[in-house]
Amino acid sequence: MMSNQTQEEVFAAPLTQTGLHAIHACWRAANYLAVGQIYLLDNPLLLQPLKPEHIKPRLLGHWGTTPGQNFIYVHLNRAILQRNLDIIYISGPGHGGPAVVANVWLEGTYSEYYPNISQDEAGMKNLFRQFSFPGGIPSHVAPETPGSIHEGGELGYSLSHAFGAVFDNPDLVAACVIGDGEAETGPLAASWHSSKFLNPARDGAVLPILHLNGYKIANPSLLARIPHDELESLLTGYGYKPYFVEGSEAEPMHQKMASVLDICLDEIAEIQYAARKQGLHERPCWPMIVLRTPKGWTGPKEVDGLKVEDFWRSHQLPVTAVRENPAHLRLLEEWMRSYRPEELFTPSGAPQPELMALVPKGKKRMGDNPHANGGLLLKSLRLPDFREYGVAVPSPGSVRAEATMVMGAFLRDIMKLNESSRNFRVFGPDETASNRLDALFQVTARSWMENILPYDEHLSPDGRVMEILSEHTCQGWLEGYLLTGRHGLFSCYEAFIHIIDSMFNQHAKWLKITSTQIPWRRPVASLNYLLTSHVWRQDHNGFSHQDPGFIDHVVNKKSSVIRVYLPPDANTLLSVTDHCLKSRNYINVIVAGKQPEWQWLDMEAAVRHCAFGISIWEWASNDSADGEPDVVMACAGDVPTLETLAAVDILREKIPDIKIRVVNVVNLMTLQPREEHPHGLSDRDFDDIFTTDKPIIFAYHGYPWLIHRLAYRRTNHKNLHVRGYKEEGTTTTPFDILVMNDLDRFHLVADVVERVDRLRDRAAYIKQFVRDMLITHKEYIHEHGEDMPEIRNWKWKGRTGATSAGD
Amino acid sequence: MMSNQTQEEVFAAPLTQTGLHAIHACWRAANYLAVGQIYLLDNPLLLQPLKPEHIKPRLLGHWGTTPGQNFIYVHLNRAILQRNLDIIYISGPGHGGPAVVANVWLEGTYSEYYPNISQDEAGMKNLFRQFSFPGGIPSHVAPETPGSIHEGGELGYSLSHAFGAVFDNPDLVAACVIGDGEAETGPLAASWHSSKFLNPARDGAVLPILHLNGYKIANPSLLARIPHDELESLLTGYGYKPYFVEGSEAEPMHQKMASVLDICLDEIAEIQYAARKQGLHERPCWPMIVLRTPKGWTGPKEVDGLKVEDFWRSHQLPVTAVRENPAHLRLLEEWMRSYRPEELFTPSGAPQPELMALVPKGKKRMGDNPHANGGLLLKSLRLPDFREYGVAVPSPGSVRAEATMVMGAFLRDIMKLNESSRNFRVFGPDETASNRLDALFQVTARSWMENILPYDEHLSPDGRVMEILSEHTCQGWLEGYLLTGRHGLFSCYEAFIHIIDSMFNQHAKWLKITSTQIPWRRPVASLNYLLTSHVWRQDHNGFSHQDPGFIDHVVNKKSSVIRVYLPPDANTLLSVTDHCLKSRNYINVIVAGKQPEWQWLDMEAAVRHCAFGISIWEWASNDSADGEPDVVMACAGDVPTLETLAAVDILREKIPDIKIRVVNVVNLMTLQPREEHPHGLSDRDFDDIFTTDKPIIFAYHGYPWLIHRLAYRRTNHKNLHVRGYKEEGTTTTPFDILVMNDLDRFHLVADVVERVDRLRDRAAYIKQFVRDMLITHKEYIHEHGEDMPEIRNWKWKGRTGATSAGD
Repeated sequence: MMSNQTQEEVFAAPLTQTGLHAIHACWRAANYLAVGQIYLLDNPLLLQPLKPEHIKPRLLGHWGTTPGQNFIYVHLNRAILQRNLDIIYISGPGHGGPAVVANVWLEGTYSEYYPNISQDEAGMKNLFRQFSFPGGIPSHVAPETPGSIHEGGELGYSLSHAFGAVFDNPDLVAACVIGDGEAETGPLAASWHSSKFLNPARDGAVLPILHLNGYKIANPSLLARIPHDELESLLTGYGYKPYFVEGSEAEPMHQKMASVLDICLDEIAEIQYAARKQGLHERPCWPMIVLRTPKGWTGPKEVDGLKVEDFWRSHQLPVTAVRENPAHLRLLEEWMRSYRPEELFTPSGAPQPELMALVPKGKKRMGDNPHANGGLLLKSLRLPDFREYGVAVPSPGSVRAEATMVMGAFLRDIMKLNESSRNFRVFGPDETASNRLDALFQVTARSWMENILPYDEHLSPDGRVMEILSEHTCQGWLEGYLLTGRHGLFSCYEAFIHIIDSMFNQHAKWLKITSTQIPWRRPVASLNYLLTSHVWRQDHNGFSHQDPGFIDHVVNKKSSVIRVYLPPDANTLLSVTDHCLKSRNYINVIVAGKQPEWQWLDMEAAVRHCAFGISIWEWASNDSADGEPDVVMACAGDVPTLETLAAVDILREKIPDIKIRVVNVVNLMTLQPREEHPHGLSDRDFDDIFTTDKPIIFAYHGYPWLIHRLAYRRTNHKNLHVRGYKEEGTTTTPFDILVMNDLDRFHLVADVVERVDRLRDRAAYIKQFVRDMLITHKEYIHEHGEDMPEIRNWKWKGRTGATSAGD
Repeated sequence: MMSNQTQEEVFAAPLTQTGLHAIHACWRAANYLAVGQIYLLDNPLLLQPLKPEHIKPRLLGHWGTTPGQNFIYVHLNRAILQRNLDIIYISGPGHGGPAVVANVWLEGTYSEYYPNISQDEAGMKNLFRQFSFPGGIPSHVAPETPGSIHEGGELGYSLSHAFGAVFDNPDLVAACVIGDGEAETGPLAASWHSSKFLNPARDGAVLPILHLNGYKIANPSLLARIPHDELESLLTGYGYKPYFVEGSEAEPMHQKMASVLDICLDEIAEIQYAARKQGLHERPCWPMIVLRTPKGWTGPKEVDGLKVEDFWRSHQLPVTAVRENPAHLRLLEEWMRSYRPEELFTPSGAPQPELMALVPKGKKRMGDNPHANGGLLLKSLRLPDFREYGVAVPSPGSVRAEATMVMGAFLRDIMKLNESSRNFRVFGPDETASNRLDALFQVTARSWMENILPYDEHLSPDGRVMEILSEHTCQGWLEGYLLTGRHGLFSCYEAFIHIIDSMFNQHAKWLKITSTQIPWRRPVASLNYLLTSHVWRQDHNGFSHQDPGFIDHVVNKKSSVIRVYLPPDANTLLSVTDHCLKSRNYINVIVAGKQPEWQWLDMEAAVRHCAFGISIWEWASNDSADGEPDVVMACAGDVPTLETLAAVDILREKIPDIKIRVVNVVNLMTLQPREEHPHGLSDRDFDDIFTTDKPIIFAYHGYPWLIHRLAYRRTNHKNLHVRGYKEEGTTTTPFDILVMNDLDRFHLVADVVERVDRLRDRAAYIKQFVRDMLITHKEYIHEHGEDMPEIRNWKWKGRTGATSAGD
């Protein structure tokens, strides 16, 4: 700090001359460092005149959003210092990498995480060189960027991430910069409503900063062009009190930004005080900032006679072909020198002490805030023993239960046990009760800050079940919650989880990078999906609600971060849930039904089955005499398991000498080769289970070809015949939807007799039986509108070997 | 019409007693018919007391949204009659099936499309029975519903569909009912901004009707609970002038709705007049309606002491277990009789003439509006001869071109040729120029109704390129545009098309149902995607921009409606584009790069190649002497094709006696068995191309396992070795991203020598060469930040057989 500079002078708003000078210097430094990252290979301090060889041969990077984000960052620094705040910075606009990296380097954090990017000339050279360079860092804010929980590549999720981060973090403020391009996306548009779920007594605050720089890649942005009144009305309508900071002249803009930021932070403090000390329960009107500045602010105004600053041409590189074009080289040099680097950095390349006066210290630096490296703060959930929630299963198929309802009781007690830690929430689009997890409402409620009417049920500002009819917002909240070191579960109708396919992609990529390449990022809790109301039980909602393809989508991502479980009953669901909630850095997909269904495994057997991930169900098999089955009947998923066992029943009745081995798969990844997935069975184990030469009839929950894609390298793949959903659906009965897709017990029976040579003589008779049953079925449902009693009331007969539920 | 009833009396607003009576009767009738659909198997006119056997055994269906939608529908009918308007009805809320079906039956359309659902007692019985019944119709508004272009299953797309429908349909009004649940979704929230792209001089109008009935499945809805001021502010901020119709008493509500509807339609007419006759160019403030009515309006107020009407308990079945519970049966009967069916229907079961007085005639009936069966109105595009846009390719690999730029010129002239038909638009999230389709801007502009500044480029209210940074909105617009009988193309970055995965699902389901099960729905133009800026050329944007998985997602849907093309160069892209734009009822996915790349086929060869979908490239192969290659090198996608040919080059140089067959796949579906996809090769043809026993090294654009999933049944599958994207990415050079995924020429060379037994003796030497090259590559890029000159400047040498570009 310069000797004649006092705290008050630096921090006052409006700023004193000293304060103004300091903050402007910081901004210039960040801008300089950003331009350097985009352009320079060498000569980082411009100690020599700029020459072509100092320029990167392949220019990549984006300037447009950068100066505005630098402006915000340095002003936030002032506020942190003045108020000793815990703030994390969320960079929503695309391509904000150079800005955040510049600031994190200035505050010293970057060099602590990456010692070769030191705060000196050599470090600055490395800083510049690595940006968008092979072996270097991406052009977006990314997992590699200290202080970020948000990847700036795919747009739309900044605000939901910000809210997720501050839930249950009462002392945290998430400053969330929203680009005006990003603001056009659906997920962002919906996420403004997040404030209706933020309890100022319990949660922290989000300060949205809508950054209108007017342009996207090649277009004006909508929110920057609509009339001022309309914009104000829109943001007011979303429930915020917008403060406008608009202009392009540095001095008055610094003054405005400093005052407005102070006003906003004062209001946040008042809101929190009112809620925490005075017990006010109304949803407050939270402040926000609209920052309207030129795109590419402080960059070249024109290049080759074309408007660049304050136009979309500044989106990427304001000046191109710098190596080849001497005029452009000169322009770049003038531009960089306009920041007066010699005043900003010491001759050795460190930031001048004057700049450092405006930089927070230690963990208060936004680049080093532990909330942005949530694994540092992560506490394991206290989990009750899931075995205690188990369904008593005296013998396989002797009792019915609703799997997700059983899970609900487990979740309820997890919620209760971790109440004081405030680190567990359940998310879903208005489906928690529909998905039978309503035991949760015995101990908590839905989060709700609007009016509550006398007859409303389970709504409370303190609720820990997060329901909004926006899968995007649920997903964004949960990601933000997990990345800041907490735990959660997302329950969703299976078909509609595709709504967040692309968000899943981005989170999987984040986890892949962080878990394999960024040791300083500590492991976070896994993102757990419960997909229920699944394809086979959407007969009543029809074709639009039938899609089991999320699993296919998931398995395209790195095997190191994805897991897929298809528990066949309630006890296996409990075991899987327990496992997933303990795991770290994964995305776990659990698919399980909510309807009353037969239960197969007692708790001991369930635990063992889940530990293996795949087992031969001896109690359902009768090939143990010589270990040579006629056929392997495999199944994955609760409904396919039921149909397989029903088919076994029929086969054993009709063909008493048939030898069937029943295999159940709970962990889908066991089917992959071990080299492809850590859970993959060895070829030897796979051959032991599936044989090397017997027909395999595989009843699978989803699209059948996925099983082939997982198992095509296995010895017995040529004999693998898979049934699953083949995109035949409508509104009908639960059994009929199986028939439409050839996954019902009768089709499975036909599949078996068709493929077992030894049964050829009896095939015609069995097939006639199957045809008759299918005709009877169709006639019955068209007359009665429901399935035949023998289908609805079917019960596993357990002919032989079924003496215990164990194995 | 009753004899003493005049037109004026029925149509006045406020309504006369006669008009009020008539409209209320229509509403009662629709409500009655909706309840009947949900509950009754028999006794449709309640001519006998209701008995358990009259009730469906399995009760399915949703009442909550129904009475509100019926209310809207009958009021729209009045307006259509009074003003002779062309209105289509979009039912956004979930589960609106009973409402729309009831009204379409009342207006007579339903019986015309489905003669067994006649306007008499037997027909009414069938109408009731079929609803949510096996072999019947879904519970949502669906393809089966005459008058609908919108499936009410997955929420969020009603408003973008409505805007898509009225673009270029100046005389059409889309009345778009938006549920308050749906309004929470991201896609819906973004799509309010669609009015900023609607030109009142050229396009029709959308009348949004936000239907606040207060509750979702088990929760209050946000927009119904926020303060009135906030809601008004939000809608004003979105650019609309909201009119509120709020209440629960039928008479005043009818009066309010009639007046407000008149005001809105007057304003729409004024806006259109000002734009069309007076040439006003400003974006107007369009009117909209907020209809706040109780959920489950007119249904039971309480059941078993619990609040039902005006609460979420009316969402589904207000009264359950009706067969079993006599009190419930009585309640249902009272409820149904409260509509006084005996006044509404003749003894034979037809609607009373009084009701028919409020029903529009012929094509003015919303159920029979031809715009909602767009294939009826579809005119083929006028297409110039795509061959004229071809790149001259004197010999394979002798010239470079940017494929999408070449396509852009073709699109430009299509745009021009069809200007007067106004039936072609191009959609994309701010990427048309970035995707090199900017030739379009020679003949049209981006659609833009906001201010246009002097230096803005290619913005106009008359523009036909639709750009908003919301993939959801682009997709919704395009679907609405196509389903009303027009043509379009969606260009998108490949990675981010996953944002609309779930919308793709729903459109594919719509097409599957309509093309196979609903003959009265005429074929519509295909939905065409151009995916560019693809995975292999996102090295600069980094990992978040790298995802080729949309193809995997697409091929899960019915083969009858999906097509996937990977043209290897500009001329094949032209041929494929021409084909797609002529096709009907498909979803075509075209993946093509935008960077300058070597061109392989002259136009004649390109056309032939695309016609086959897969060919042996003789000019690149040297196995023709005895037709026995050592290896088949297959490729699909522009970059994999380049790498394959570069690998061939190396192999032929290093191993002069190697015999390589090069196979290129442009139509991915040729790989599937013919039984699985109509484009699938016969096994014989497949064996001819891929051999039955030679190693196949397949370089594929996307995730490699997709090729296995398509080809696992083929004879030579065991020798198939696929390289593709295996989720390894970052910011690096274009070639390095290939190296990271083992898809580069060097890895392909190593793959070949490893698998061809005859080359075992030379394998070690070649593999050493490969290792050296890869090390050199890494060193070079880390030093220079760009690929080695021998990579950048590589050129196909065309050693033998390459005398013509033909074959």
